[in-house]
Amino acid sequence: MALTQEEMEQRNKLQTDKVIDIDVHPLLRSMEDLYEYFDDTWKDFFRASKVSSITGQPFLVPVGGGLRMDSYPPEGGPPGSSPEFMKTQLLDQHSISHAILFLSSGYQISSLPQEQWAIALASACNDFLIDKWLSADSRYKGSVLVATQDPQAAAREIDRVGSHPGMVQVGLGIHSPMRGYGDKMYDPIWEAAVRNNLVVCFHVSVATGLYKNNSTGPTQNFPEFQSTHNQTFQGQMASMIFGGVFEKFPELKVAFIEGGFSWVPHMMFTMDTHWKAARREVPWVKKYPSEYVREHFWFGTQPIIKTANPKHVLQLIEMIGVDRMIFASDYPHWEFDSPQMALNHLPKEMREKILFENAKKMYGFED
Amino acid sequence: MALTQEEMEQRNKLQTDKVIDIDVHPLLRSMEDLYEYFDDTWKDFFRASKVSSITGQPFLVPVGGGLRMDSYPPEGGPPGSSPEFMKTQLLDQHSISHAILFLSSGYQISSLPQEQWAIALASACNDFLIDKWLSADSRYKGSVLVATQDPQAAAREIDRVGSHPGMVQVGLGIHSPMRGYGDKMYDPIWEAAVRNNLVVCFHVSVATGLYKNNSTGPTQNFPEFQSTHNQTFQGQMASMIFGGVFEKFPELKVAFIEGGFSWVPHMMFTMDTHWKAARREVPWVKKYPSEYVREHFWFGTQPIIKTANPKHVLQLIEMIGVDRMIFASDYPHWEFDSPQMALNHLPKEMREKILFENAKKMYGFED
Repeated sequence: MALTQEEMEQRNKLQTDKVIDIDVHPLLRSMEDLYEYFDDTWKDFFRASKVSSITGQPFLVPVGGGLRMDSYPPEGGPPGSSPEFMKTQLLDQHSISHAILFLSSGYQISSLPQEQWAIALASACNDFLIDKWLSADSRYKGSVLVATQDPQAAAREIDRVGSHPGMVQVGLGIHSPMRGYGDKMYDPIWEAAVRNNLVVCFHVSVATGLYKNNSTGPTQNFPEFQSTHNQTFQGQMASMIFGGVFEKFPELKVAFIEGGFSWVPHMMFTMDTHWKAARREVPWVKKYPSEYVREHFWFGTQPIIKTANPKHVLQLIEMIGVDRMIFASDYPHWEFDSPQMALNHLPKEMREKILFENAKKMYGFED
Repeated sequence: MALTQEEMEQRNKLQTDKVIDIDVHPLLRSMEDLYEYFDDTWKDFFRASKVSSITGQPFLVPVGGGLRMDSYPPEGGPPGSSPEFMKTQLLDQHSISHAILFLSSGYQISSLPQEQWAIALASACNDFLIDKWLSADSRYKGSVLVATQDPQAAAREIDRVGSHPGMVQVGLGIHSPMRGYGDKMYDPIWEAAVRNNLVVCFHVSVATGLYKNNSTGPTQNFPEFQSTHNQTFQGQMASMIFGGVFEKFPELKVAFIEGGFSWVPHMMFTMDTHWKAARREVPWVKKYPSEYVREHFWFGTQPIIKTANPKHVLQLIEMIGVDRMIFASDYPHWEFDSPQMALNHLPKEMREKILFENAKKMYGFED
């Protein structure tokens, strides 16, 4: 199955698509990378606690240990830890004009039980990203990580670094530390995102620490986990829409990343049906829930589903609206989707929108 | 909007469909109805504890208090408490040949923290149903309620009453008391169902007691709950398929009731994609997960979704396979779907399968 380097280059040359990749993961070489960005108090804490990772995640990934086998930088360190090698292997090879970075495991910060540490950690990650990545190439764009355990502190962090020209979004895990993200306690975060003209990106996260498990309790194997973690996306969509978030923040833009999209038609139709029947309980929801979806939400394609009958994917995308779909590679994780190959079962015009135009419009990138 | 009684009868006469209704809820007049079916020990317990309902459920339903306003029996008592009035209002008026009964709130029994009480309660409910309902009309068919907190006791209860000629299924809530229903601890239940030639029906249930909440924690209003409780169905489907249940029990038939169906294509495509990538962890899953869905699962239509574009419902049903769809009215609950009206946006041939033929085949009813 694997192509040689030459075959791969040949195949990529066949297409001239410009690509915006909205899900790229830098990794730390080690936690030591963050040390210099803590203040003295947290430097002491860091040393004394011998912290070895942002957060652990409990699943073994039985494919390549969760990382592309060919993505280890030649100078050493884990996949995704070299801005230079990522330029070669990802940006140049795949014609990527904008790569939106979300520090690996950063989507777990809001699950940490130690709130003050989570706040300090998010800030250190943001300073590291600005210092080591956004300065390395203008194609790299950043996600402001925040600790949503304290929404006011999260808003302050967005104001602190959100105006950096390379920062294009607030980056959250899809799990919320308490209640769904439609609860009013989180309003300061959406307010700060809009104030700083940032998209809010929700990335898949794993139940651990403060996070709730799936509706049936802990999943017992990795395919089961992969097939059901999108429930958290479904839940947050309902929580935010029925919580009235988009009436309070009509300019808020939401990107749902690595949660798939095949569940979106279901949620649009189901929310519409129940809103129509029982809307007297939520008078602040002014229109059909699917209208909020079509105005405020975008969905990353990765991991792209394969169906026996290709028309089924097209039908699902048509139900959502092709304008809501944006390309994500998930580099350097093992499920990497190549922009030149993953969408080849879709019509050319649809592919161009998904690979470039939709994200350009959503993030407001200039030509 | 409401039709007069005369208009309603006229409309129903226009159609001669035979109907199997797989979701009908008898209600107790009061818990006192069950008293005679307990043994002396539990009679004492019952009196001393002053138990007033099978289980509480925490949601206010802001439409008719959750019950059809016109379904109160003329002789008094709550909706669904009179076998005679139900015959008139449901069976006769809607040409229903088989009404599959699931005692209201019976889907909450496996959430009770007091295991021995749950076991005694399930038995009393089953004896009550046989005594007061299955004997009242041969069109009434029964669900064997069990307490899945103790799978061995559940299997014994299935053997105790499952061979009654009116019993056609085991009736469970969709929530499991611990881990997903794919865990091997539950195998004795599936084994007993197959041994007694019973379908296993999973009905929507509400997070309370032992049950886990949705993936985002407690939902905060009823439309949000209604739009996301189907996550538990999605989770149990993945748990059972990846747990290998259908390789162990190839004759097992599963009916998913009041969880909708618009999420099913998503789960088929998503499970297939992740099984293909990571199946080495679950070698006992021998084929694409969607194949198990198409062989072992049936889905109740209620509450039927309405879409702005009617072709979207047709496309979703086609993705699942029309043979997997079965009609459910949910009488006397407020979301009641009339068999003569709810499916009118579907083609006639499809409607006949869903209203009658599919359920007849699944339950093995004779002509």
